[in-house]
Amino acid sequence: MNPLYEIKISCRDRPGIIAAVTRFIHHELGGNILDLNHHSEEEGHIFFLLSRFTLPPESEPLLHLLNEQPAFQELKRTYDWSFSVYDPALKPKIALLVSTTDHCLYELILKVQEGYLDTEIACVLSNHTTLERVARQFDLPFHYFPTGDDRAGQEALLDEALRRYNVDTVVLARYMQILSNEFIRRWEGRIVNVHHGFLPAFKGARPYHQAWKRGVKLIGATAHYATEDLDEGPILYQDVAPVRNNLSVKAFIQSGRDIERKVIVEGLKLHLERRVFLYEGRTIIL
Amino acid sequence: MNPLYEIKISCRDRPGIIAAVTRFIHHELGGNILDLNHHSEEEGHIFFLLSRFTLPPESEPLLHLLNEQPAFQELKRTYDWSFSVYDPALKPKIALLVSTTDHCLYELILKVQEGYLDTEIACVLSNHTTLERVARQFDLPFHYFPTGDDRAGQEALLDEALRRYNVDTVVLARYMQILSNEFIRRWEGRIVNVHHGFLPAFKGARPYHQAWKRGVKLIGATAHYATEDLDEGPILYQDVAPVRNNLSVKAFIQSGRDIERKVIVEGLKLHLERRVFLYEGRTIIL
Amino acid sequence: MNPLYEIKISCRDRPGIIAAVTRFIHHELGGNILDLNHHSEEEGHIFFLLSRFTLPPESEPLLHLLNEQPAFQELKRTYDWSFSVYDPALKPKIALLVSTTDHCLYELILKVQEGYLDTEIACVLSNHTTLERVARQFDLPFHYFPTGDDRAGQEALLDEALRRYNVDTVVLARYMQILSNEFIRRWEGRIVNVHHGFLPAFKGARPYHQAWKRGVKLIGATAHYATEDLDEGPILYQDVAPVRNNLSVKAFIQSGRDIERKVIVEGLKLHLERRVFLYEGRTIIL
Amino acid sequence: MNPLYEIKISCRDRPGIIAAVTRFIHHELGGNILDLNHHSEEEGHIFFLLSRFTLPPESEPLLHLLNEQPAFQELKRTYDWSFSVYDPALKPKIALLVSTTDHCLYELILKVQEGYLDTEIACVLSNHTTLERVARQFDLPFHYFPTGDDRAGQEALLDEALRRYNVDTVVLARYMQILSNEFIRRWEGRIVNVHHGFLPAFKGARPYHQAWKRGVKLIGATAHYATEDLDEGPILYQDVAPVRNNLSVKAFIQSGRDIERKVIVEGLKLHLERRVFLYEGRTIIL
Repeated sequence: MNPLYEIKISCRDRPGIIAAVTRFIHHELGGNILDLNHHSEEEGHIFFLLSRFTLPPESEPLLHLLNEQPAFQELKRTYDWSFSVYDPALKPKIALLVSTTDHCLYELILKVQEGYLDTEIACVLSNHTTLERVARQFDLPFHYFPTGDDRAGQEALLDEALRRYNVDTVVLARYMQILSNEFIRRWEGRIVNVHHGFLPAFKGARPYHQAWKRGVKLIGATAHYATEDLDEGPILYQDVAPVRNNLSVKAFIQSGRDIERKVIVEGLKLHLERRVFLYEGRTIIL
Repeated sequence: MNPLYEIKISCRDRPGIIAAVTRFIHHELGGNILDLNHHSEEEGHIFFLLSRFTLPPESEPLLHLLNEQPAFQELKRTYDWSFSVYDPALKPKIALLVSTTDHCLYELILKVQEGYLDTEIACVLSNHTTLERVARQFDLPFHYFPTGDDRAGQEALLDEALRRYNVDTVVLARYMQILSNEFIRRWEGRIVNVHHGFLPAFKGARPYHQAWKRGVKLIGATAHYATEDLDEGPILYQDVAPVRNNLSVKAFIQSGRDIERKVIVEGLKLHLERRVFLYEGRTIIL
Repeated sequence: MNPLYEIKISCRDRPGIIAAVTRFIHHELGGNILDLNHHSEEEGHIFFLLSRFTLPPESEPLLHLLNEQPAFQELKRTYDWSFSVYDPALKPKIALLVSTTDHCLYELILKVQEGYLDTEIACVLSNHTTLERVARQFDLPFHYFPTGDDRAGQEALLDEALRRYNVDTVVLARYMQILSNEFIRRWEGRIVNVHHGFLPAFKGARPYHQAWKRGVKLIGATAHYATEDLDEGPILYQDVAPVRNNLSVKAFIQSGRDIERKVIVEGLKLHLERRVFLYEGRTIIL
Repeated sequence: MNPLYEIKISCRDRPGIIAAVTRFIHHELGGNILDLNHHSEEEGHIFFLLSRFTLPPESEPLLHLLNEQPAFQELKRTYDWSFSVYDPALKPKIALLVSTTDHCLYELILKVQEGYLDTEIACVLSNHTTLERVARQFDLPFHYFPTGDDRAGQEALLDEALRRYNVDTVVLARYMQILSNEFIRRWEGRIVNVHHGFLPAFKGARPYHQAWKRGVKLIGATAHYATEDLDEGPILYQDVAPVRNNLSVKAFIQSGRDIERKVIVEGLKLHLERRVFLYEGRTIIL
């Protein structure tokens, strides 16, 4: 099998970038492009590119090749590229942080099990013991780190577990606990959260109660990267469902469960497929 | 043809209301119920009922009958009813208030023309002359009331026209002009507005620009009753459409047009069919 | 607690039915109506009614009361009612028939577990052993009835198990095995099936392959009652999802899984809530 | 302004195509790629590519350049390309063929007027005089070609008008008249039709009546290229809307109107933007 690689590039937009990239991959690396997606941001004149390509069977690892290639150094200088390179053969590992609600946890486990999410669940971590039974049903490691007065201590335990399991991405699957700014900074761009409301409409606590009181006709949920300002992180995926206005708050919450589990899966999928670029607090998704 | 009536009732919920209403219509009035919808609001213990029924061919007008019926007075006292009675044969008249954007205006005219909205457009009123050509295309009266320093004077002209045309409901079809609290109070519950954003997410000016900057993945629009706090009126209808995150603001606005024209038509339709109850700043729709 | 009942009535449409029913419940039975839904079928002049009501605490069972009530016998005669009476306190039991695909099975188990479907899963029956592990994960009885040359014998085993577990409704959750006409007749109106295609567009085998070849832009799934002509049963629920036209057949199938699990849950929910009337090969859902 | 061009290429898939195209545009033509979309069809090993690019200000016309370029002839030979080249500055002209229903006609006119469809309506042609008033409202040429015994004669008049107005694409906007195979062959790939049903579910006449009788829970419409087998043409766009099962056929038809006008606009838009490739009776849309 030929080794498969992905490259993500962003830079100021200017003529000839696509031709330069494709020529480099084809001629200098001897690669074959399978996919190429790009977007030029009109307002900021920024260019984003994502490409998957194969290299010949006996190639050296890509990063190695790039470092040695004067042509690539030249391209980097010319276009002032930010770039990252991935080896799709390395399956990323995720940790699921949960509290007491099980619908997002079940959905993530099942979507990994059926191969829709191309990742490995390294562990389930929780500040409650409630969902240990779900982890056990699927033979997943479960750890209970209660939150008490010593938040720093609890987060140290989380961190230690994430390191031990070689976790790449943390998924807050209805983890109803505020994380410290330090923790969030350490994992910046690698914590996917689900907000059980259509952001930015209903920030803060009890969004379904807020929505019900306001008499909205659609409820929604939002998957986003966690940032220090918890409800302001860059949005990955959103969805809504119509609610008949004469439903109770309880029915709003129940309708919300299916949307929450959908957005967390779709948002995480975009992240795992590395289709997401961050730019000025927004996501650009290719 | 037997005369057709509608009755709307709201009161505190208690046993036997449906039986009392249906028996009264059938036995005391000799009527035949065609439709009956009701809803009990769990949290407030409030009951809402909407029914259409026919009376025998030679009946007196319903309000006349009700005033003379001791049984009805008794029911009103027992249940402490708020009620209203409508004659569906009387087609309500609407006025369309517009500024310079034509998509909501065209849609409302076409939906009335094809009979989807059961109403008559009495006149088109505007603070610009831009859309006079559209009114002329469909032979609708058009009046130009420019807004300058004298807002009270302009609103007096509006009021005078609405009275002259016997208008029942005012539709703000992208009328980009703030109305005074006095005007809004005079027409309370009879002004349908379209907000070009998914309320309450993006209040205020330029909602599509706000949405684009925030990187939302769905944009929406909201039809609601106008209240003194313009973006807080009870919501009639909402809809959304997915936006690819790499679209420009201009494309956001373009995608928004179809949602705006849909929600103004559907919201107005619910109002014209008298299916809307107002309760604590929300709508209950039967 | 006052005992709660449901009554379903269908008959030829004529004046006064609603008033007659509500008066009977309120006056003869001393009941209190919580909900009442009805529909008059214009084309066939048929009337359908569904109502939930409570009786006073010390009432006799409803069927008992009705049999003794001359007033009810009178109503039945006058309107020529088909009617059925339910005791919502008796939770219906379902059996899940599966083959080798697990997504519908998991979804049904989880939706029962969280209370969205108000039923009890009595057993999981299969013609393969593949999904025994899923039943075990949730401590559900599992029985393996292989299909070989003796279909009649296999169906006798199915029937015996369904009787032993007091099953009310059979759910074909991707049970990829044709059932005999005799079996289907025995369970008429009580077998809910999911067809992995948007009926009636893609009947028969491999609907996603058919859809892909035809280049459709939406794929769907259908929940319906099983009838002797398997793909022609009355439809309970349908849903679709857009497919990008450049997806592979495999991606069509993957996208279809979420729609299948949604329609089987929603179709079954309508059935379990007894909101479905059968009329001329269609469903009327109140 | 630099001249803008589009190129569409399809060929058997093989390594290096993207690099070859982009290098050619950039190096041989001195062009700058604005957009590049591609798709590899797994099952048929076919490659499709669509690209927009600018040439330097004083360039000769693109087709001229290509014919003179040995490098391009070489590429064509190497990859066995089917290709077409467009000048986006030349706005395509469309003719609207209508009968008596106006909703698709109004929608197409309005979407052209607001710039959503980048085309010019050259004329409105009809076999009835009913919609002449709509054409007049918008100052569009209208011609009445009645269909009688002489279909060939009527189609000759159509053809003559289409030629006279330099029409590029014919839109059948609810033109309820069968066209001859000869006519369809002459305009192959350039006739966009709307079928008022979700193909392939309800072919033939009165699809909403068929759908209602079958009790479907979603109704839809389909935009497709007209082919000799009228309901089998390659699908451009489809959409559906949920229908409450207790609606009348009339309400089905009314709900269908909004879907029909949406799919005809979106399907035509894809065609006008040249994003459609035809392949084995399906469309591939980039």
